[in-house]
Amino acid sequence: MKMKPVDHIKIKKSMTVNELVRQMDSAGVLGAGRLGKAANICESMIKDKDCKVFLGLAGPLVPGGMRNIIIDLIESSWIDVIVTTGATLTHDLGEALGYRHYQGKADADDAELHRKGFDRVYESYMPNKIYEGMEDFISENFDDLKGKKSIRELLWEIGRLTPHQSILKACFENKIPIFCPAISDSGIGLMIWGQLAKGKQVETGAFDDLKEIIEIAWTAKKCGVIYFGGGVPKNYIQQAMQLAPKSAQYGVQVTMDRPEPGGSSGAELKEGISWGKLNPKASFVDLICDATIALPIIYAALKERIKF
Amino acid sequence: MKMKPVDHIKIKKSMTVNELVRQMDSAGVLGAGRLGKAANICESMIKDKDCKVFLGLAGPLVPGGMRNIIIDLIESSWIDVIVTTGATLTHDLGEALGYRHYQGKADADDAELHRKGFDRVYESYMPNKIYEGMEDFISENFDDLKGKKSIRELLWEIGRLTPHQSILKACFENKIPIFCPAISDSGIGLMIWGQLAKGKQVETGAFDDLKEIIEIAWTAKKCGVIYFGGGVPKNYIQQAMQLAPKSAQYGVQVTMDRPEPGGSSGAELKEGISWGKLNPKASFVDLICDATIALPIIYAALKERIKF
Amino acid sequence: MKMKPVDHIKIKKSMTVNELVRQMDSAGVLGAGRLGKAANICESMIKDKDCKVFLGLAGPLVPGGMRNIIIDLIESSWIDVIVTTGATLTHDLGEALGYRHYQGKADADDAELHRKGFDRVYESYMPNKIYEGMEDFISENFDDLKGKKSIRELLWEIGRLTPHQSILKACFENKIPIFCPAISDSGIGLMIWGQLAKGKQVETGAFDDLKEIIEIAWTAKKCGVIYFGGGVPKNYIQQAMQLAPKSAQYGVQVTMDRPEPGGSSGAELKEGISWGKLNPKASFVDLICDATIALPIIYAALKERIKF
Amino acid sequence: MKMKPVDHIKIKKSMTVNELVRQMDSAGVLGAGRLGKAANICESMIKDKDCKVFLGLAGPLVPGGMRNIIIDLIESSWIDVIVTTGATLTHDLGEALGYRHYQGKADADDAELHRKGFDRVYESYMPNKIYEGMEDFISENFDDLKGKKSIRELLWEIGRLTPHQSILKACFENKIPIFCPAISDSGIGLMIWGQLAKGKQVETGAFDDLKEIIEIAWTAKKCGVIYFGGGVPKNYIQQAMQLAPKSAQYGVQVTMDRPEPGGSSGAELKEGISWGKLNPKASFVDLICDATIALPIIYAALKERIKF
Repeated sequence: MKMKPVDHIKIKKSMTVNELVRQMDSAGVLGAGRLGKAANICESMIKDKDCKVFLGLAGPLVPGGMRNIIIDLIESSWIDVIVTTGATLTHDLGEALGYRHYQGKADADDAELHRKGFDRVYESYMPNKIYEGMEDFISENFDDLKGKKSIRELLWEIGRLTPHQSILKACFENKIPIFCPAISDSGIGLMIWGQLAKGKQVETGAFDDLKEIIEIAWTAKKCGVIYFGGGVPKNYIQQAMQLAPKSAQYGVQVTMDRPEPGGSSGAELKEGISWGKLNPKASFVDLICDATIALPIIYAALKERIKF
Repeated sequence: MKMKPVDHIKIKKSMTVNELVRQMDSAGVLGAGRLGKAANICESMIKDKDCKVFLGLAGPLVPGGMRNIIIDLIESSWIDVIVTTGATLTHDLGEALGYRHYQGKADADDAELHRKGFDRVYESYMPNKIYEGMEDFISENFDDLKGKKSIRELLWEIGRLTPHQSILKACFENKIPIFCPAISDSGIGLMIWGQLAKGKQVETGAFDDLKEIIEIAWTAKKCGVIYFGGGVPKNYIQQAMQLAPKSAQYGVQVTMDRPEPGGSSGAELKEGISWGKLNPKASFVDLICDATIALPIIYAALKERIKF
Repeated sequence: MKMKPVDHIKIKKSMTVNELVRQMDSAGVLGAGRLGKAANICESMIKDKDCKVFLGLAGPLVPGGMRNIIIDLIESSWIDVIVTTGATLTHDLGEALGYRHYQGKADADDAELHRKGFDRVYESYMPNKIYEGMEDFISENFDDLKGKKSIRELLWEIGRLTPHQSILKACFENKIPIFCPAISDSGIGLMIWGQLAKGKQVETGAFDDLKEIIEIAWTAKKCGVIYFGGGVPKNYIQQAMQLAPKSAQYGVQVTMDRPEPGGSSGAELKEGISWGKLNPKASFVDLICDATIALPIIYAALKERIKF
Repeated sequence: MKMKPVDHIKIKKSMTVNELVRQMDSAGVLGAGRLGKAANICESMIKDKDCKVFLGLAGPLVPGGMRNIIIDLIESSWIDVIVTTGATLTHDLGEALGYRHYQGKADADDAELHRKGFDRVYESYMPNKIYEGMEDFISENFDDLKGKKSIRELLWEIGRLTPHQSILKACFENKIPIFCPAISDSGIGLMIWGQLAKGKQVETGAFDDLKEIIEIAWTAKKCGVIYFGGGVPKNYIQQAMQLAPKSAQYGVQVTMDRPEPGGSSGAELKEGISWGKLNPKASFVDLICDATIALPIIYAALKERIKF
């Protein structure tokens, strides 16, 4: 049995994030080792010219301070497809319309927050006024939106229309397809419902995006998947991988969900081999870590390793 | 400070599930106390004639052996609205078409499972043939499906068409609205994509269901929510509660997700007060428990308490 | 590949706990299936006349309402050895001296609780007066305690001296060895320190118990282990299993800790095979569940299955 | 309501770990914000000349590659008291005797590992030969050990005797008290049992350390606590804080355990206010993170901030 010893991490003064991640990779086990490996696999799939990189984003990444990193990722052209939640797009649109999220407390008085107009997301607060801003925005631009057949087309159009830089605008400008299958389950969805309630119509179909994401997977030479959080974003990409000729050949999953309840969010990537979602020879790693810790570290390491 | 002591649970021979749940309620703390309280709150909202009960179901409940209980719940008329995942409906339809799920191992050889045609869901296995059965079913019945404007209409129609008893058939027969916002993120969605790829069309809109679920919440005298698992099902009901005149007045959440990562799935119900999703005076409880343990226990207790 | 299908649980009115657990066993997967299997393995090891059963107890079982069940377990003679925490013995002694624990809130005002003299254990409260009662008790009985060479002898003596029924008294009366390696890390330890601070001496050695527990494991024909919670109780039994001729042949672990951080508390039982703590052919199961839910259910099922 | 906005993290090329931690602190919420705050509080308590810093270490920190960091922490004189598990000291002593830990797999064949002589700690492997090396070491040095009255004295003596640098040797050389209440629950404990089994005697008392740690807490102007992992190390320090005149005034907890099961390991620091373990005005933070990720990051940040 040939084995690598665990090298103990040695901290030097003023070491860069990437130097630390390299040390973690040499330790090679537990959270540290997996974080090191996650950075390596992300680097490999991004540098692999044949590989289409699918990024799944769930959880409060925008209220958690990750918005710049996501926009930088899109603008760097490292990512080919994004799938995310309606909540993320709602938070993002809110900030693009000039609102902010705020630092709060997990044990806040929620009734008081309600009276003062703040919606709590664990320990961050979103001003409820975001809804008013979005309602105006959707209402004013509804004519531009209503012709859109697929949710992806709708999202690019919203991106085009947003006044300031945003995840959606970056996707539109860089022509990165962004999917959000459960868009109706979000503030944006609510605003569109508000228009429907006034008798307006929208033509966006529930199934039309499938064709597009599956064709990208189907025609890719290789596929790589990166998941921060689970939910629909992960599952929707996994489903596309089932139809990719060689399934995913690279995989990185970062979540705090656990596999034992059996749901897709916490399922280990390895499970995907049985489904034909992950190639049995893929490079992959599951990292149990808060996304707001892992994402900045991995991105900082990558930024030092990869030339644009 | 007036406080109730923790009564130690006393086990009697051959006690019924409900007798045990009553003892847990008297203990009053930790998992036991919360399970006792969950049963009480479910009982209250079901017995409250003015209350519309919204049930959110996520996670592998059908592969986990919960299908009969869910069907019984629907047929008992205790539930007014169901929101679930495409995966649950896919598993359910598979069983309605004559397939079964199997007992497996979490540390299985996934490559071998893939060769043998079984898709792993933690420690249960789904035969991959379910996809073929569903493809035939959707293909043969596509003409009946394609006129459906909303996902809920589509699901009732699938329920009507299924040959054996199923969650969807029970919803259709008992006229219980069932919603699945992310239907495209599922085996059923894939089968419909298969038809689109052949040039067929489907008219189902991405936003049309919103109107229906919001109107139910909007017009209800009272609302109660029961969540097994999080994801889109929970969030979609929570969103409807935001528009209910008095928000939810009863709430039970059962999940293994934790609040600290900040996502909706693990968020404590209390957080909903800030959003106007939960009434500040609501009866509610968060139970951290595997759904396949908590659901049978709570349902068994309710069945002893509530006369049909 | 021969596989058992997942049988869907069918709830009958007024079914007993054991009937439900049998149904969970037939479902056979996830939490339900593991709970069913846990009951089966406990039943097997208790009925196996050749098997010494080691019970490890950690976490707030007494504040959580489990005290009667633990005492019943001891008095039933199903258990041969107990290892627990100093906290459990402190809570138990407190109740034996006439104090109670109380139902509280997880989001309590801790500063107010402190002023009012209540120590919070998540959502249960312990009156701080327990310390005074224990101090008097230890002080008055110190002459009886100080001759004791091993912690086990000390604990039996405390059990003998307690005025009302208790875990320790039941162990003393039924001659069940009870170990608590980290006794100094507890209220009882503090009270003994109080006597040392007054210049008294105690002869109890830090290593003397090891000989006794290892001899039990060493000479047993078979060993079975049951863990509710991890910590020192689990690890101390696991260590004894390493020296049992055939390691543990039965194993049940119930915990909410997860394996990924790598600590002993959350480690899967299977890991023990590498150490020689678990026999490779052992019957064993890991159940992720709150102890206050799983313990009453398993004990109620066993009480219906096993004749005293 | 005056609130700080969430500043989105901006990654610059080749930024140092401390620069990233500062950015996380500006984001201010979720894992990132808490990691930033943890570094700040550690910095404050270490720089506070009046503050005695108590460090609790549990979990597989040595197999996880953290040994150098712990030794550096001790040699930096930032820490005044350490409490840890017997397992950590066993792993440390093993490495001091020339053994290594190895990178392995969580889904290893444990029966094969057993045959080949490797003990698995999640995904790291410890060669079982460590036990032989320790047995020789303890056997050869037993005369030096047996006079030791307290576990702390015993541990310093082991540190003095170890041939290479180690956690214990660093504690001995820097006169940092190190406590291990459950020493008998470890490989070191087993080796001492081996000597007892041969008829030798050891005078180490079970309660003698309490006096020493409590006096340090009792006489300190201020106390700060840092916990990586829970278990006895955390609880033993918390117990000492209960007797510190002003309780702990700084607190940092890093763990993957959750509060809901109610055990001490996962209990939020805030709970300690009710017990008088934490000062109501203390600066404190609970961080849910793998220790092998958080410890190197925090230490790297501190090394950039604090001059030796």
